[in-house]
Amino acid sequence: MTQHMQAFFLHGPKDLRPASIPIPPLAADQVLVQVRATGLCGSDLHYYAHGRNGDFAPKAPFILGHEAAGEIIDSGAFADSLPIGSRVALDPSHPCRVCPQCLRGRYNLCANMQYFGSAATFPHVDGSFRQYLPVRAENCHLIPPAMSFAEAALLEPLSVALQGVGNSGGVAGQSVLVCGAGPIGQLIGLVARHYGAAHLAVTDLRPQALQLAAENWADCGVLADAPPQLAAAAPDGGFDIIIEASGSAPALRTSIEYCRPGGTIVQVGNQAGPVELPVNLIMQRELTLQGSFRFAHVFAQAVGLLAQQRLDVRPLITQTVAFADLVTGFEAALTPKNIKVVIDYPATNP
Amino acid sequence: MTQHMQAFFLHGPKDLRPASIPIPPLAADQVLVQVRATGLCGSDLHYYAHGRNGDFAPKAPFILGHEAAGEIIDSGAFADSLPIGSRVALDPSHPCRVCPQCLRGRYNLCANMQYFGSAATFPHVDGSFRQYLPVRAENCHLIPPAMSFAEAALLEPLSVALQGVGNSGGVAGQSVLVCGAGPIGQLIGLVARHYGAAHLAVTDLRPQALQLAAENWADCGVLADAPPQLAAAAPDGGFDIIIEASGSAPALRTSIEYCRPGGTIVQVGNQAGPVELPVNLIMQRELTLQGSFRFAHVFAQAVGLLAQQRLDVRPLITQTVAFADLVTGFEAALTPKNIKVVIDYPATNP
Amino acid sequence: MTQHMQAFFLHGPKDLRPASIPIPPLAADQVLVQVRATGLCGSDLHYYAHGRNGDFAPKAPFILGHEAAGEIIDSGAFADSLPIGSRVALDPSHPCRVCPQCLRGRYNLCANMQYFGSAATFPHVDGSFRQYLPVRAENCHLIPPAMSFAEAALLEPLSVALQGVGNSGGVAGQSVLVCGAGPIGQLIGLVARHYGAAHLAVTDLRPQALQLAAENWADCGVLADAPPQLAAAAPDGGFDIIIEASGSAPALRTSIEYCRPGGTIVQVGNQAGPVELPVNLIMQRELTLQGSFRFAHVFAQAVGLLAQQRLDVRPLITQTVAFADLVTGFEAALTPKNIKVVIDYPATNP
Amino acid sequence: MTQHMQAFFLHGPKDLRPASIPIPPLAADQVLVQVRATGLCGSDLHYYAHGRNGDFAPKAPFILGHEAAGEIIDSGAFADSLPIGSRVALDPSHPCRVCPQCLRGRYNLCANMQYFGSAATFPHVDGSFRQYLPVRAENCHLIPPAMSFAEAALLEPLSVALQGVGNSGGVAGQSVLVCGAGPIGQLIGLVARHYGAAHLAVTDLRPQALQLAAENWADCGVLADAPPQLAAAAPDGGFDIIIEASGSAPALRTSIEYCRPGGTIVQVGNQAGPVELPVNLIMQRELTLQGSFRFAHVFAQAVGLLAQQRLDVRPLITQTVAFADLVTGFEAALTPKNIKVVIDYPATNP
Repeated sequence: MTQHMQAFFLHGPKDLRPASIPIPPLAADQVLVQVRATGLCGSDLHYYAHGRNGDFAPKAPFILGHEAAGEIIDSGAFADSLPIGSRVALDPSHPCRVCPQCLRGRYNLCANMQYFGSAATFPHVDGSFRQYLPVRAENCHLIPPAMSFAEAALLEPLSVALQGVGNSGGVAGQSVLVCGAGPIGQLIGLVARHYGAAHLAVTDLRPQALQLAAENWADCGVLADAPPQLAAAAPDGGFDIIIEASGSAPALRTSIEYCRPGGTIVQVGNQAGPVELPVNLIMQRELTLQGSFRFAHVFAQAVGLLAQQRLDVRPLITQTVAFADLVTGFEAALTPKNIKVVIDYPATNP
Repeated sequence: MTQHMQAFFLHGPKDLRPASIPIPPLAADQVLVQVRATGLCGSDLHYYAHGRNGDFAPKAPFILGHEAAGEIIDSGAFADSLPIGSRVALDPSHPCRVCPQCLRGRYNLCANMQYFGSAATFPHVDGSFRQYLPVRAENCHLIPPAMSFAEAALLEPLSVALQGVGNSGGVAGQSVLVCGAGPIGQLIGLVARHYGAAHLAVTDLRPQALQLAAENWADCGVLADAPPQLAAAAPDGGFDIIIEASGSAPALRTSIEYCRPGGTIVQVGNQAGPVELPVNLIMQRELTLQGSFRFAHVFAQAVGLLAQQRLDVRPLITQTVAFADLVTGFEAALTPKNIKVVIDYPATNP
Repeated sequence: MTQHMQAFFLHGPKDLRPASIPIPPLAADQVLVQVRATGLCGSDLHYYAHGRNGDFAPKAPFILGHEAAGEIIDSGAFADSLPIGSRVALDPSHPCRVCPQCLRGRYNLCANMQYFGSAATFPHVDGSFRQYLPVRAENCHLIPPAMSFAEAALLEPLSVALQGVGNSGGVAGQSVLVCGAGPIGQLIGLVARHYGAAHLAVTDLRPQALQLAAENWADCGVLADAPPQLAAAAPDGGFDIIIEASGSAPALRTSIEYCRPGGTIVQVGNQAGPVELPVNLIMQRELTLQGSFRFAHVFAQAVGLLAQQRLDVRPLITQTVAFADLVTGFEAALTPKNIKVVIDYPATNP
Repeated sequence: MTQHMQAFFLHGPKDLRPASIPIPPLAADQVLVQVRATGLCGSDLHYYAHGRNGDFAPKAPFILGHEAAGEIIDSGAFADSLPIGSRVALDPSHPCRVCPQCLRGRYNLCANMQYFGSAATFPHVDGSFRQYLPVRAENCHLIPPAMSFAEAALLEPLSVALQGVGNSGGVAGQSVLVCGAGPIGQLIGLVARHYGAAHLAVTDLRPQALQLAAENWADCGVLADAPPQLAAAAPDGGFDIIIEASGSAPALRTSIEYCRPGGTIVQVGNQAGPVELPVNLIMQRELTLQGSFRFAHVFAQAVGLLAQQRLDVRPLITQTVAFADLVTGFEAALTPKNIKVVIDYPATNP
């Protein structure tokens, strides 16, 4: 008899509906994971609030959620490596492996990427806002007992932060400005500190977000509506590296002026539309504006950072909400006071 | 008795006035060059037409001209290396050598750069629209008998092209789009062909400029007001490298869409103002937008390319005008039919 | 009824025996190629002469040959893209696609690589010294009518040359020394010239090999037993890039002395054993010694270079021998007068 | 009346003689520093023990010492920036600024480098084993009150470590093996840990040196005469980066085998002579062997690391010896139990 589970489908803006659906059978390369935690990402919030995420407009109801961790409850063919009860974090990436981007090793740019909880391709790829998730065994990363499922749910955004920092060319000994103290900005800051940035400044519109950054990694916080303060915070000659994680057009535009000649700006945030940029400044200072998208090759590195307790992401989890109250969680995540909201799932038997 | 020479001063928009001025005495590190040819650059044309060049507004009349070649007529302390009669091309760069950019080897970004014929610093640095020019000996590059002074006058823009191509990360085996078939675009095309680009497309508004490119280096030319043609000209998956040398906002904006994931756009052209850019595309495709400004370390390489006849820049010289008729030369250079106008100076005795 | 074909098996040093073997059935991803040309590579000669190739000692008789081109005679499931009669060059690489090296895009370093005609793995991978070869469709690259099968047989070593030049960091505008004017050295020279090396020197023990280089690409040839000549040939301050393609220990050791501070030495050739190197020179000049092995991502680029007639590899083919006389071909290839020997196969019906 | 000071001259192997010499007058760009601490470097020990340092054989007695810190006692023309009483660390580098290496920004490779306490050029450049040292103002880096002179004396070797780590391409998230737990190896380890290496192993012949590394930065120490242990310590697939800081030929040779395909080995240590290397392994795995020499651009970064207390170098100072007992200090430094010996100078009035 097919067993069923609870899942939440996005039907439109602010229209998230629970449903009972069958647990799908496992493919040969899959294991079954009981989801125990999922983080809410900015893209989830875009889908929820606007019914779409930038260019990606769903054509059918689907299940969001791609920052997930849980427990193996059916090992499929992987009883040795992923025995029942294994605690795992889930890499949501399923690149095609045969397109030019995959062959070059830049699989995050795969044109055929299947990513949990994304409407970028059709049929859409259902995510983790359900009780049980069949996952390719190789996408499951073991986590140690000391790492909570909630922390493990931050491994995906931590991977995004690692990609952004990596795309800067390396922050060791550099002066770095992080634009935006939301979850990605905070994780970028933690990573940049751990990877030896010499000076770390941060901008945001929310004093409490700056406060959290100051407590955990930032040397200096600047309210984003206070440009004179940014001028004062910039080192002599400008920042070596600027990482834009706010998706704010003024943040990007303004920050470029504070980048030293020959410096690098990494765009990680999702902008709402085209941005008017001082291209002549980019030209005359030989600046590099570098895009950064999702991540490649760094999920295991993220696991290692938390497993070896080199970073502490727990202060970023400002609220935890039960799976049954998912809508409450989304609404909470939309308030400016929260940095990261994590959804907590009970352990149950299917 | 102090000797005098003819020079042209820029007093304002379209206000270029001849004057007789003393030949300045040589500094210890200088030689005296009789100018024999100077090319007209886009920046000269901006100064001439608008009385300013983008952000650089002259505070006093000064002498334009920075693409120069000539003959040594006073060797100063350099009789051995630069004897009288030596034919030389002039590198117009005088970086300070002690600022952070200079120490890093990126002297083209020197905050204290003194560049012939530029109002970027004050007092402005007079250029080569005069008969005699005192020049630091090390800025004089010997040219062989087979290279005309007019060709040698193209070594400065050729150096700018080398910088732009170099800042792309290397074109060997790559598909490349050059935006703009003016003098810099044409030189970039010649360089990219010589350095082994696999496929070279070019856009411009002027059919005759595309024609010149097709005759000398381009595989494919696209009228810039014909986007569907650009789509057709782009290789499967987009260009590896796009070099923007037109200073046109639509050119930059449009071209980004035809850059392959992970590809590079180099901004060489001077844009008239801020440009609205599809930043999300840059982000999602992990594109690199790289500025390129003047040049560093490549003037000797440019000399070698022409001296060894690896490139032929002569087809780009579409008109030659006598020094006495400088205003005529500027007006000619402003017409769309011309690619490069070179000013020809008579050999005289001071 | 199973059809048979002629093949040559290596049984030991200088022990190459013909045999009639069944034509294997096609796998779902394969097509059947009638081999029309195979080049003899240095590694083939090592196997033939010594019964082994460096560390790779065959455990069973197998078929050599990995520089191959031919004609599709059974299209399998690929009638549209590779119809019968298609003329193709064969990329001999079959990486595993799932190991860390493959995922990073460096599939030439794949630990599980299956390469035509190689005893590096067991069971050994049979190569192209047979009449018919089942090949994965994606390893077949179409070649134009103007490209002979013999030329197409040089696409594999040309790819090796592209990898070596690419691993130098780019030769555009650089002074380059190629050690060894055998087939790989000659191809490296052709590529370096085409990709804009400013100055190209070459060393070899054979005057006729230097002569061939001088006719096709080298500015300067130096007999390898004449170190004073190498000193004279080196540019002021040393070569920017040295590409070692001879596998000679003295060549590597000596050349390092002629590399400029901060320069790069690429090791492409197979050395007979450990080499005593001036490591302090590498340290004090911050030289880079970079290995280069087979190739990744450049086979199509090689096809393009020949298809667009940007390079002419024909002068390197110094002898052509019929397939039936394969042993004669191997013996000819071992004489110093030959650069590249290509084996020519008749068109027949299976 | 000319004032005098005590200085120690090296006359030959183990022949270090005190002398009273005049305090030289200041040049226009200099200040006078009362030396308060100098560290003993491996190269000092080579000069002392063997009368020469590898290729550098002194032609006349000279003063060693290049890891120095002290107090400004005559500000010359720099009363504003370096007032009397300023506590400073001394960058011993005096590159020529006009050679090709300097212009490229790689001034550590300057052919005309003047380095304190070095016989690489003639006349030799006297170092800091004297009471007073005239120093170019720009070579003086202010240090905060909390930093002792002894710590500041470690800024020069710390800069060497930063260069070595930087030349690896970046250690963030990488597995790193440091060969040699002497002062440079220990500093490399501290830097690599601070810059986010994921896994840090170290080899040395001395258990106590491994112990010090384990206490301060190493995840894993291996006795250098125990290769099986090294195999066990290497991560799956090998180290990403190996930094050779022992100058031991077997260390370099062995470590290469434990470098992953595509990985990097940085040679920082001074080898006693040529080293026999497995070049084919470098070739087949596309390894990079990268030299690292002294440092460029990182002295201020080193100051920042200590001033902001991001690294603690104090545990490396295993013995302090008074200036008057310099010979005792050298003898102590030659015993295996010491990591870093620092010479302590009294504050006196000239």
